[in-house]
Amino acid sequence: MYTARISISGHLIDSGLLSRLLDAVSDLGGKFEIVETQFGRMKEEESCATIEVGADTCEELDKILDKAKELGATVFDGEPVQLAVVEQDGVCPDEFYTSTNIETYVNIDGQWVPVDDIEMDCAIVVDAQKPAARCCPLAAVSRGEYVVVGSSGIRVASMASAKETEVFSFMGSDVSSERPKALVVEQIAREMKEVRARGGKILVVAGPAVIHTGAGPHLARLIDAGYVNVFYAGNAVATHDVEWALLGTSLGVYLKDGTSAPMGHTHHLRAINTIRKAGGLRPAVEKGILTKGVMYSLVTNDVPYILAGSIRDDGPLPDVITDSVKAQDAMRKNLKGVEIALMLSTMLHAIATGNLLPARVKTVCVDINPATVTKLADRGTFQAIGIVSDVEWFLKELAGHLAAN
Amino acid sequence: MYTARISISGHLIDSGLLSRLLDAVSDLGGKFEIVETQFGRMKEEESCATIEVGADTCEELDKILDKAKELGATVFDGEPVQLAVVEQDGVCPDEFYTSTNIETYVNIDGQWVPVDDIEMDCAIVVDAQKPAARCCPLAAVSRGEYVVVGSSGIRVASMASAKETEVFSFMGSDVSSERPKALVVEQIAREMKEVRARGGKILVVAGPAVIHTGAGPHLARLIDAGYVNVFYAGNAVATHDVEWALLGTSLGVYLKDGTSAPMGHTHHLRAINTIRKAGGLRPAVEKGILTKGVMYSLVTNDVPYILAGSIRDDGPLPDVITDSVKAQDAMRKNLKGVEIALMLSTMLHAIATGNLLPARVKTVCVDINPATVTKLADRGTFQAIGIVSDVEWFLKELAGHLAAN
Amino acid sequence: MYTARISISGHLIDSGLLSRLLDAVSDLGGKFEIVETQFGRMKEEESCATIEVGADTCEELDKILDKAKELGATVFDGEPVQLAVVEQDGVCPDEFYTSTNIETYVNIDGQWVPVDDIEMDCAIVVDAQKPAARCCPLAAVSRGEYVVVGSSGIRVASMASAKETEVFSFMGSDVSSERPKALVVEQIAREMKEVRARGGKILVVAGPAVIHTGAGPHLARLIDAGYVNVFYAGNAVATHDVEWALLGTSLGVYLKDGTSAPMGHTHHLRAINTIRKAGGLRPAVEKGILTKGVMYSLVTNDVPYILAGSIRDDGPLPDVITDSVKAQDAMRKNLKGVEIALMLSTMLHAIATGNLLPARVKTVCVDINPATVTKLADRGTFQAIGIVSDVEWFLKELAGHLAAN
Amino acid sequence: MYTARISISGHLIDSGLLSRLLDAVSDLGGKFEIVETQFGRMKEEESCATIEVGADTCEELDKILDKAKELGATVFDGEPVQLAVVEQDGVCPDEFYTSTNIETYVNIDGQWVPVDDIEMDCAIVVDAQKPAARCCPLAAVSRGEYVVVGSSGIRVASMASAKETEVFSFMGSDVSSERPKALVVEQIAREMKEVRARGGKILVVAGPAVIHTGAGPHLARLIDAGYVNVFYAGNAVATHDVEWALLGTSLGVYLKDGTSAPMGHTHHLRAINTIRKAGGLRPAVEKGILTKGVMYSLVTNDVPYILAGSIRDDGPLPDVITDSVKAQDAMRKNLKGVEIALMLSTMLHAIATGNLLPARVKTVCVDINPATVTKLADRGTFQAIGIVSDVEWFLKELAGHLAAN
Repeated sequence: MYTARISISGHLIDSGLLSRLLDAVSDLGGKFEIVETQFGRMKEEESCATIEVGADTCEELDKILDKAKELGATVFDGEPVQLAVVEQDGVCPDEFYTSTNIETYVNIDGQWVPVDDIEMDCAIVVDAQKPAARCCPLAAVSRGEYVVVGSSGIRVASMASAKETEVFSFMGSDVSSERPKALVVEQIAREMKEVRARGGKILVVAGPAVIHTGAGPHLARLIDAGYVNVFYAGNAVATHDVEWALLGTSLGVYLKDGTSAPMGHTHHLRAINTIRKAGGLRPAVEKGILTKGVMYSLVTNDVPYILAGSIRDDGPLPDVITDSVKAQDAMRKNLKGVEIALMLSTMLHAIATGNLLPARVKTVCVDINPATVTKLADRGTFQAIGIVSDVEWFLKELAGHLAAN
Repeated sequence: MYTARISISGHLIDSGLLSRLLDAVSDLGGKFEIVETQFGRMKEEESCATIEVGADTCEELDKILDKAKELGATVFDGEPVQLAVVEQDGVCPDEFYTSTNIETYVNIDGQWVPVDDIEMDCAIVVDAQKPAARCCPLAAVSRGEYVVVGSSGIRVASMASAKETEVFSFMGSDVSSERPKALVVEQIAREMKEVRARGGKILVVAGPAVIHTGAGPHLARLIDAGYVNVFYAGNAVATHDVEWALLGTSLGVYLKDGTSAPMGHTHHLRAINTIRKAGGLRPAVEKGILTKGVMYSLVTNDVPYILAGSIRDDGPLPDVITDSVKAQDAMRKNLKGVEIALMLSTMLHAIATGNLLPARVKTVCVDINPATVTKLADRGTFQAIGIVSDVEWFLKELAGHLAAN
Repeated sequence: MYTARISISGHLIDSGLLSRLLDAVSDLGGKFEIVETQFGRMKEEESCATIEVGADTCEELDKILDKAKELGATVFDGEPVQLAVVEQDGVCPDEFYTSTNIETYVNIDGQWVPVDDIEMDCAIVVDAQKPAARCCPLAAVSRGEYVVVGSSGIRVASMASAKETEVFSFMGSDVSSERPKALVVEQIAREMKEVRARGGKILVVAGPAVIHTGAGPHLARLIDAGYVNVFYAGNAVATHDVEWALLGTSLGVYLKDGTSAPMGHTHHLRAINTIRKAGGLRPAVEKGILTKGVMYSLVTNDVPYILAGSIRDDGPLPDVITDSVKAQDAMRKNLKGVEIALMLSTMLHAIATGNLLPARVKTVCVDINPATVTKLADRGTFQAIGIVSDVEWFLKELAGHLAAN
Repeated sequence: MYTARISISGHLIDSGLLSRLLDAVSDLGGKFEIVETQFGRMKEEESCATIEVGADTCEELDKILDKAKELGATVFDGEPVQLAVVEQDGVCPDEFYTSTNIETYVNIDGQWVPVDDIEMDCAIVVDAQKPAARCCPLAAVSRGEYVVVGSSGIRVASMASAKETEVFSFMGSDVSSERPKALVVEQIAREMKEVRARGGKILVVAGPAVIHTGAGPHLARLIDAGYVNVFYAGNAVATHDVEWALLGTSLGVYLKDGTSAPMGHTHHLRAINTIRKAGGLRPAVEKGILTKGVMYSLVTNDVPYILAGSIRDDGPLPDVITDSVKAQDAMRKNLKGVEIALMLSTMLHAIATGNLLPARVKTVCVDINPATVTKLADRGTFQAIGIVSDVEWFLKELAGHLAAN
């Protein structure tokens, strides 16, 4: 749904003006919400109302707004988008508009043009000739490009409608640890099946607890069954997964019995060194060094994976992209077609990925720490459904639904 | 293992005194640990050593200590226990000894007498005639009784040895959310089978999250299969369990699909009112009103349950013991023969039960909040193994091992 | 604000019916919100609208509703409240209405009568003769009394307006640990001054962390300065406060330097025993045994305090009310005139008190654990403002504003 | 203290062998701990003991070990360190030794050589000619260098002694939120004064909560007073600090009154853009654009700061080092002379810095989330003292002690 606000004043009630206006909106297939009314205390005083009107397409909305103008309403919409030129690479004009992660149109010479690559906290670069518009991170704007400034000429789809059509709707809000979660997992499994059936992509973002808890094999089964199409993680996930594949431990703890290996704290370094020696994960698989685990399944199933570096990394593995700006770019490029994102026990990578995701991507965040879930929503990924639970269990249940042994 | 400390001084090394002493301890089947040594800097200076000696029984320890005295050691042990009379009901003499939760003996006229009903933070009441000794809460001592004062004449079993023989030993310490937990659950299931096989009792202490998460039926299966022999909880667990049995919801949320019932926040009050009308849980079962759930299974399997009241209770149910001192007493009485305690998602009841449990009872505390686990250990129930995980999953797994459908 | 819903159908827009209705509401000083509209798709189809109308008093609302009926609207309001008789002590009729914690009126023979002692999750007992109505806990209804059943004839003040006039409004919602809190404390201090100036009461509900963190003296200063008029806590707060006063420790830790006392884990039992010997806290103060601390200040300033028992209590102190139903009653009785409630680091007592508080009482919940704050709101005390912070710091700052040394 | 283990077997007690050995250790100024003993059950069976001997210097330890060998003991020490050549840049030989963060010596041709730049999880590169040894991250070893392999010929200082001399000793272990913290802050302030007095350096590692809570000015005062000599943070800290300096908000919330700014969620992007336009933080200060805050104080006091990039960054600021390997290197270079590290509300940067710190650096970790503190210790920074508290309060108190207005 696309919306715009209109304001109307006068003897709204007596004269039937408000009545006529709302009638017109209805006649044209639109919806309305009376946002604010200021009724004159005395009969003779004028009243004033702010009304949000909505329509399913930009075109229908335009017709409604034209009619409203005829009736005397002021329309806060319709002016062309304002542009300013970038004078220095990576620096925007002062009043640049910052994007949200919701579908957006900009008005270029009276035409509503959709903004591509929608992502929160970006500038919108406009090519008025084509016409075309796209989100662009601050650091990537180039001298001479035109960027949207101010706030006129912009239409953002209201999320209310997005939520209405939400298949996940029964979850409403977050799923606390004190709610039944078995049902939620079942519903997510069903959704994943549908997405796969229609050729959509599923993104998994994982933290090292997935490996430490012994849930790696469950995730590998999901990968093998085709339910992971893009994978984001850090050096730690891949390292401990390899550590398990080579030495049976994760952070030095044997996953088969929970005991600590002697000198186990050095195991992850040996794992890293082995992969460095082999020249990377894929070579290690090809040379028969790495023969199982999450990374093995990603390589053998040709699932694109991005391992993004962080300052707490040991090693790192040769596959890690150590530059954070380059890692972000690689992540952006792999988001095309993603319809569901599962974020498993990782705050850093979940927030980072959330920053890049359009709001239309169904996002599920599983973490035993309620703060991770809360923070993700606070940082703008409001569409994320949080499940406060144990990731080991979540993956076991999910794999049970989708990739039964 | 029972231990005592001895101190010895002299030219320990040169003269071979230390050597002879340690030799003697070994000869008598004891163990020793050199706790502290103060060696003279100059050859001619005397040295001094504090040694902890241990033996499997009180009698063997006595023989070792006698030998040590012969060799010139000072033995911090062996004096008779000191007693003082209670002059006022519920008030102990000033210097009363407060018990730990570990097996304890007191020396009455040279005889080591075991302390019955061992429980932390109690007074020890002694009947020197029999002779006999028992733990007694402060408030329950009676005028004229004799109570242990000071710290001499008391032997407390060292827990080191208790831990050695621990079947749960592979868990070592707490099981964080970042460790593999499937194995731990398997091990607990095995232990529960053994306890049941040898006629020991299993205690379950539960909080309302067990019901809210939909894990009630898993717990009911465990009860039906005979794996719960004593049950402690509060008004909320029973209330929401009944709410689910009668209305399908827990705190107003339908457990079959996670949706909220209209007026659902009143459901628990209706459940309480229904049970009050029936005259209690057992009458409600007998009248065919309550036909499923945790409380139903407890009633039909004749498992003793204690519902202890708290100031945040609504209602409460007629079965609730509202007086906290009476509830504690009822809980104490049902602990005989308990060998394993499972504490499921409850801080209040877990700590309360922990306060009453002998340290020899294997204790497992499952909570998604690490703070609960930590607090239980901090408050003296150091034998508790904490599992930071989701109780819904824990019970499903456990019931899968012990009471497969 | 009191509200009622009305429904109107017909050719709402064309005929000007909706316009006339809204006009009438405005003329009579009321407010309206169009809750739902169902507009006919075709011109000739009828439309239908549900409108919530509100007025500042019950009387004004009645006039508006009468007018709406004239205009053809259906008014979901105005029928008399339905009553049923209690047939068994402590058991309500099946369809009994359960109260919220918001100001409520019931319609007795056409007259809107306020409900006294408003409290959530109670029955409403009506004396139709007087007429009068009051909240009554389930367990306290008596045979022969009349209780409200169903949901007609009841008006609940909407909290929207309550929030509007909220002095604490700048806090909006909860104050996370990542927000500036110094300002919030300043605001609370200002509010407390105002409440005291107009003779209102301030309730403090405290948990043992107040004592363990060494913040007891800050709280005592607030008591001495007259800023605590009612005090609720459990056995632990009083015990550790006395432990500190007598022995310098809280749970065995010296508050002057943070070191652990030898045998410190027995200190709280010695403290309890000392007070039991003295016959209670007041006698202990009078005999010169207890000479400082929170409990000392409460006694010497004649501030009523309720210590409610729990099953994890040691002792307990003679002042503790061990029966939870009696403790609740005592807490209820002391709530008259309370305008602000500060809940400091206690989940059990905060939720218990929250259950008893009318929603109009400004409630501040300070806890380092965000879960406590969340749970309080989830359990119905939605007016509670949560401050996720360290109670030691909160009390130091607050005492700095109100009771500077 | 430097330690080595020796093993001795024979008729240890009868023959006086053990006695003579311990005597010898004492005579030479050493200390010993009997780690394990296996006494023959029968008189004629041999016994066996493992003993850890310690001395203050490597030289003294050597003398003791020589004597022990004379007496027939097996010494697990003294062989030369084993080396292997690096055959590929950034890849170590398979059995490479991984360093701890504790002072270490390696035995090169019979000489104990200290390992420079001590840091956990590194390889040790040896130059046998000089002789010299240094820690080197895996990725930085170069072809042809020699690296320690296996575990012989290595001496690691035992931390027991390090803890003994710990000025922070009164804190013992972690400071939970339920302990008095005012004293701890006082002690830290005293320690910081001493470090500054003797020319040592103080490192502060900060997370964005420092700015969000309004504690930035407290930190700036500490910087201005000379109590911060090195500063590590991420893009967010600097960004929100600048946001506050330029626009009065942090994440869109006005720090002067806690209200949200209209369009406040765009403020941090405007702040970043402004600094990008200026060319960085120092140019922004020099041009008079940035006139207050933490970053301003760092620049004007010439305190080296490292801003390390992460994949969740917006912007980033031009000062941010986006490559994580380069950022780690920059952090390593600035650690020389650091004696105290304060880690304030940041898990990522705290763990990353902890990985690089020698264990001798006094480390204080302040976080409201107990998990951060626990994780830091679990990841090897065991010397870290955790304070579970509110960073706003911590900095206010600390600045009160060290930089009173």
